[in-house]
Amino acid sequence: MTLMPDACFAIELKVRDYELDAQGVVNNAVYLNYLEHCRHEFLLSRGIDFNRYAREGIDQVVVRCELDYKAPLRGGDSFRVTLALERVSPLRFAFLQEVRRLGDDRLVLVARTIGTAINSKGRPFLPPDMERLLA
Amino acid sequence: MTLMPDACFAIELKVRDYELDAQGVVNNAVYLNYLEHCRHEFLLSRGIDFNRYAREGIDQVVVRCELDYKAPLRGGDSFRVTLALERVSPLRFAFLQEVRRLGDDRLVLVARTIGTAINSKGRPFLPPDMERLLA
Amino acid sequence: MTLMPDACFAIELKVRDYELDAQGVVNNAVYLNYLEHCRHEFLLSRGIDFNRYAREGIDQVVVRCELDYKAPLRGGDSFRVTLALERVSPLRFAFLQEVRRLGDDRLVLVARTIGTAINSKGRPFLPPDMERLLA
Amino acid sequence: MTLMPDACFAIELKVRDYELDAQGVVNNAVYLNYLEHCRHEFLLSRGIDFNRYAREGIDQVVVRCELDYKAPLRGGDSFRVTLALERVSPLRFAFLQEVRRLGDDRLVLVARTIGTAINSKGRPFLPPDMERLLA
Repeated sequence: MTLMPDACFAIELKVRDYELDAQGVVNNAVYLNYLEHCRHEFLLSRGIDFNRYAREGIDQVVVRCELDYKAPLRGGDSFRVTLALERVSPLRFAFLQEVRRLGDDRLVLVARTIGTAINSKGRPFLPPDMERLLA
Repeated sequence: MTLMPDACFAIELKVRDYELDAQGVVNNAVYLNYLEHCRHEFLLSRGIDFNRYAREGIDQVVVRCELDYKAPLRGGDSFRVTLALERVSPLRFAFLQEVRRLGDDRLVLVARTIGTAINSKGRPFLPPDMERLLA
Repeated sequence: MTLMPDACFAIELKVRDYELDAQGVVNNAVYLNYLEHCRHEFLLSRGIDFNRYAREGIDQVVVRCELDYKAPLRGGDSFRVTLALERVSPLRFAFLQEVRRLGDDRLVLVARTIGTAINSKGRPFLPPDMERLLA
Repeated sequence: MTLMPDACFAIELKVRDYELDAQGVVNNAVYLNYLEHCRHEFLLSRGIDFNRYAREGIDQVVVRCELDYKAPLRGGDSFRVTLALERVSPLRFAFLQEVRRLGDDRLVLVARTIGTAINSKGRPFLPPDMERLLA
């Protein structure tokens, strides 16, 4: 595994109250929304548009996700989602991501998401833009 | 407005805990999920597949929605979503829907959703299947 | 109805790809999330914390919502949600809200949401902070 | 690790169209909703109510989740979520879960979710009901 140069990225978001569950904390599933949004914003910043790919029949897919929940986010919290990218095999790449609360920098979540892409015939395939990003 | 014959339908669902918000009740936005699922199941039962239409470039769209929230659903509640369909103009139809809690039949929500369909050129258009259903 | 002085507010957000449905547009229900987030941010900016109220047994509730969908938001779109507040009766207030796409200022959604608050005994009740805001 | 006797459970659900994303498949995050709903229904069937616990200040929390995505669910698909429970340490337990499509029994997702519970003082703690279930 090699960490890609120039493959670090961060976004800052604020918890929205509809994301809380009856315990008053952000529901576990919502973190996957945050992580995905950060990945897509990163890819977009590198010229790779998830939605344009989808319209062209190229689907970026998640094959595995590991999540370590360290502390909860609550209503009113703001947080930073960071990302680093590494290649894990010829056709697979991994996003290493962290969520940290703003203010006290408390670690909220650590995640590792392995992805690939699939062409319109359903075969694993890295589009040239992704190939270039991972080079 | 004429209520369509054979245009009544119902589904029964159970609240899922991730649908609750910090007040411990189903969040307001989630009811639109319930209402949409009931409408799509109704259309599917009449041979009209929302997703097949989307792939063919025909988008069924909501143009207006009115919701009266009467009582909250909570964790553990089961409920029935009902539907009646009426034509409101040559190209528009309305779904009248209710959500009632199972057990005590308490009225939870009344909704009126006006829809139309749009063809691949972005023009209002009723597909033949919808035309037949509204006849 | 009197429009409250100093009761205007706006937030700017960006569409997140998980908010899109199979038509490639923001799903109807998601707009209620946007509208709620704008209302809660507005109230918070006036010192009224939805979550603190919930913990104290005071529930702010929506009793009616009217939504006019004018144009869809798509992946990559950024948008502004605006809000004006008016009193509609001794115990009820209305939020008038608009969603407009940034860039071309296209009108996406117009909404009117009527709310009240309920105390821990389940009775309609306006907390002093809300009373002051509506004065 | 010992697999608990009598700790197997299954629910059957149907994909709802709002759960699809722009690729026309169920979004990755939604599977955590399915998995949670299955876990909560299982616990409820054993007399353990997530929401009653939350109101009493006992929070059941997820500390780690591993997800292997094997195949996508699409609009119209029905599926079964299964669950087995094992104890992994004095205060932690793991749910092993699978999602399989109905009809062809295709494996869609394999997940392992490690949980614990936290009392009102924020300390790890297994309520007697959970202790009994894991015995």
